[in-house]
Amino acid sequence: MATQVTPPRGMRDFLPAEKAGREHALGVIRRSFAAHGFDEIETPVMEDSARLHSGLGGDNEKLGFAVLKRGLAPADALAAAESGDLLSLADLGLRFDLTVPLARFYATHRAALPTVFRAIQIAPVWRAERPQKGRYRQFVQCDIDIIGEAGPLAEIELITATMAALDALGLTGCSVRINDRRILTALLAHWNVPTDLNERALITIDKLDKIGVDGVVTELDGLGIPTDGIAETLRSIASAGWDLLGSASEPDAAVAPAWLDPAAYADLLALRDALPGADLVFDPTLVRGMGYYTGTIFEIAHPELGYSLGGGGRYDGMIGRFLGVDVPACGFSIGFERIVDLLGDAGASAENAVVLIHEKDAAPGRLVALKTALVTQGLRVRLEHRTKNLKALLGRAAEAGYGRYAFVTDETADAATLEFRPLAG
Amino acid sequence: MATQVTPPRGMRDFLPAEKAGREHALGVIRRSFAAHGFDEIETPVMEDSARLHSGLGGDNEKLGFAVLKRGLAPADALAAAESGDLLSLADLGLRFDLTVPLARFYATHRAALPTVFRAIQIAPVWRAERPQKGRYRQFVQCDIDIIGEAGPLAEIELITATMAALDALGLTGCSVRINDRRILTALLAHWNVPTDLNERALITIDKLDKIGVDGVVTELDGLGIPTDGIAETLRSIASAGWDLLGSASEPDAAVAPAWLDPAAYADLLALRDALPGADLVFDPTLVRGMGYYTGTIFEIAHPELGYSLGGGGRYDGMIGRFLGVDVPACGFSIGFERIVDLLGDAGASAENAVVLIHEKDAAPGRLVALKTALVTQGLRVRLEHRTKNLKALLGRAAEAGYGRYAFVTDETADAATLEFRPLAG
Repeated sequence: MATQVTPPRGMRDFLPAEKAGREHALGVIRRSFAAHGFDEIETPVMEDSARLHSGLGGDNEKLGFAVLKRGLAPADALAAAESGDLLSLADLGLRFDLTVPLARFYATHRAALPTVFRAIQIAPVWRAERPQKGRYRQFVQCDIDIIGEAGPLAEIELITATMAALDALGLTGCSVRINDRRILTALLAHWNVPTDLNERALITIDKLDKIGVDGVVTELDGLGIPTDGIAETLRSIASAGWDLLGSASEPDAAVAPAWLDPAAYADLLALRDALPGADLVFDPTLVRGMGYYTGTIFEIAHPELGYSLGGGGRYDGMIGRFLGVDVPACGFSIGFERIVDLLGDAGASAENAVVLIHEKDAAPGRLVALKTALVTQGLRVRLEHRTKNLKALLGRAAEAGYGRYAFVTDETADAATLEFRPLAG
Repeated sequence: MATQVTPPRGMRDFLPAEKAGREHALGVIRRSFAAHGFDEIETPVMEDSARLHSGLGGDNEKLGFAVLKRGLAPADALAAAESGDLLSLADLGLRFDLTVPLARFYATHRAALPTVFRAIQIAPVWRAERPQKGRYRQFVQCDIDIIGEAGPLAEIELITATMAALDALGLTGCSVRINDRRILTALLAHWNVPTDLNERALITIDKLDKIGVDGVVTELDGLGIPTDGIAETLRSIASAGWDLLGSASEPDAAVAPAWLDPAAYADLLALRDALPGADLVFDPTLVRGMGYYTGTIFEIAHPELGYSLGGGGRYDGMIGRFLGVDVPACGFSIGFERIVDLLGDAGASAENAVVLIHEKDAAPGRLVALKTALVTQGLRVRLEHRTKNLKALLGRAAEAGYGRYAFVTDETADAATLEFRPLAG
């Protein structure tokens, strides 16, 4: 026996049925996004190390796979090893998200792109996370981003296109939780949280779902933050939803709390009014992990799932880091691996996929002529040697999505004389 | 000004028009292969270093990108640097072809696959070659392989499916140059080439197109190979084609040279007879670079091009290297980058892609409602702010494949009241 042969740790092979399901879902998403006026682009899987480690990727930067410098001189390797700066052995890295590459792409090609650029990116990313159920070291992200639109039209287009893609996949019942980083910042100021503790306080608030109000207050206290009134505010806002902003179609300053950021307030109401069909839930405690968000943030929730199916937000400062000029930007990312796990086998019509079973010594030219005739009629055709265990052969073919089969015998004159029988599903 | 921001050396970004053309071509190829009974699979972009460097990848092994070990201890890095074995800093590498990963995939999943497995792989590979026109460090390969079929039916199915894909792309006029490694081996034996020089002699014969018969003889002589009669044989066989095997439909031993390998002879005639529609050219001097080929080898030629558009062959020994049991295998790879360069912009119908031009302060909800109404009618819709330079805006939209535009004004009641005008192409 050969030793066990497996793909690298935390990475997956996709067999035909799974691959077909994935490609089907990706096609649906791609067409939905394109219909909404987004344009697909592609960047290389690698970017310069320095760009990947410029601080924009947050914790994901630490999870990046680094690519060894080509033609590295042993003396330079020795110097790097002696200094302990092992990352200097690498000049490239595999991308850990699609946002850093998009910012780089935009900086490279801005002159060739429309003023408001709506990008689709559907591609794998790599993170060296500890592998566990549902978490992989190579996985596909489906991102749409709008660069160059400062107003809420960007958020509205992103949410509309994303919900349309989920609908087209048959994933109904999703809602969008929405918040604004400016609301969180104003809330922290209202609580007198020292600015230098904002980031750590947000990480704590992000755990509200898991550790509850008391857990959050205890953690904030542990950070040295005065916690007077925090528990009450958290309890009153966590379930208030849109009522916090008033139910009128105009901003209602009389109802909303004084600490609400007025610009965020106006943008949120614009979203609510522009998206009457979407199930939009305002949650002023929603944080989202990435540090680069500057405005609206959102997350897709599904009533039957304890995790989000995707999310995004506005990141107006990021493009400027590469371009040297600030450009507004907003993005929405679908968690493709989670979604494809939820979908059943979609597959093509089995009726049009047929298996031709032939003796091992049948004339190859005759078999291929038969096959080509059927392919020309629009059928999908697989040739199979007749084996002793015919039942197993038919079972495998049915599993692979084939719906009918026929025997090629000496009496088979042409494709019209084949007698097709149904394969049990 | 920010410093110039570019993708890594030798790697490319794809802007919307180029990406659309690539996805269109990949879709055509994918559907052609699937109709011919091939099943698409996917493997991770990385494989274990040891597997990538097991000698099956030939010269490409040296061009591989290596991925730095995660959690590498500084002491281990120091030991690697001191020993000069820099590859031991890496435990994974990016694949340089799709054949080594396929062999690994088959060894991993054999029990779940049909006896004769017909695989499609459409995916990027990476080679650290010196970048030059038409040669990139990340590029897409489109491979089909048949594993488990020892007879010429495999070659016939591969050539049929590949030529169907090229036809579907509109690339007509291609021919297939064909040979068999067993013929080359027999020819070298006929010339009394010492076995240990076979590989170097084949590398020389592979240059026949470039350096001519005299160049080949001079190089063989330089290797210490007795060259009596080589020039005459090369001249007589290089242009003989099928005549070398006789023109009858049955093998004609009276016509073919005595040194022709009889098994290869029979297989070649089987291919010729089974593929009467394909332009199949027998070239007994065709070599193909990879050392793992054991039988038939083939290459796609186009009358207007000085390079091949793809190729492949039989590699019966390779799967066994991973599996421990020999399994026959044969593959055909399309050079996607070369083909996509030959194709013009295919693109979708411009008529159904429309631009809505609006004032910057138009109500977002109204714009998205208009857009959604048009998307529901099957149109592709892009929103654009009205700018001073309307001509430039319309030019960019036309370039991106949009065919019509309309202004959204205060008078626009609903989608039906939009007045569309054609965009100049």
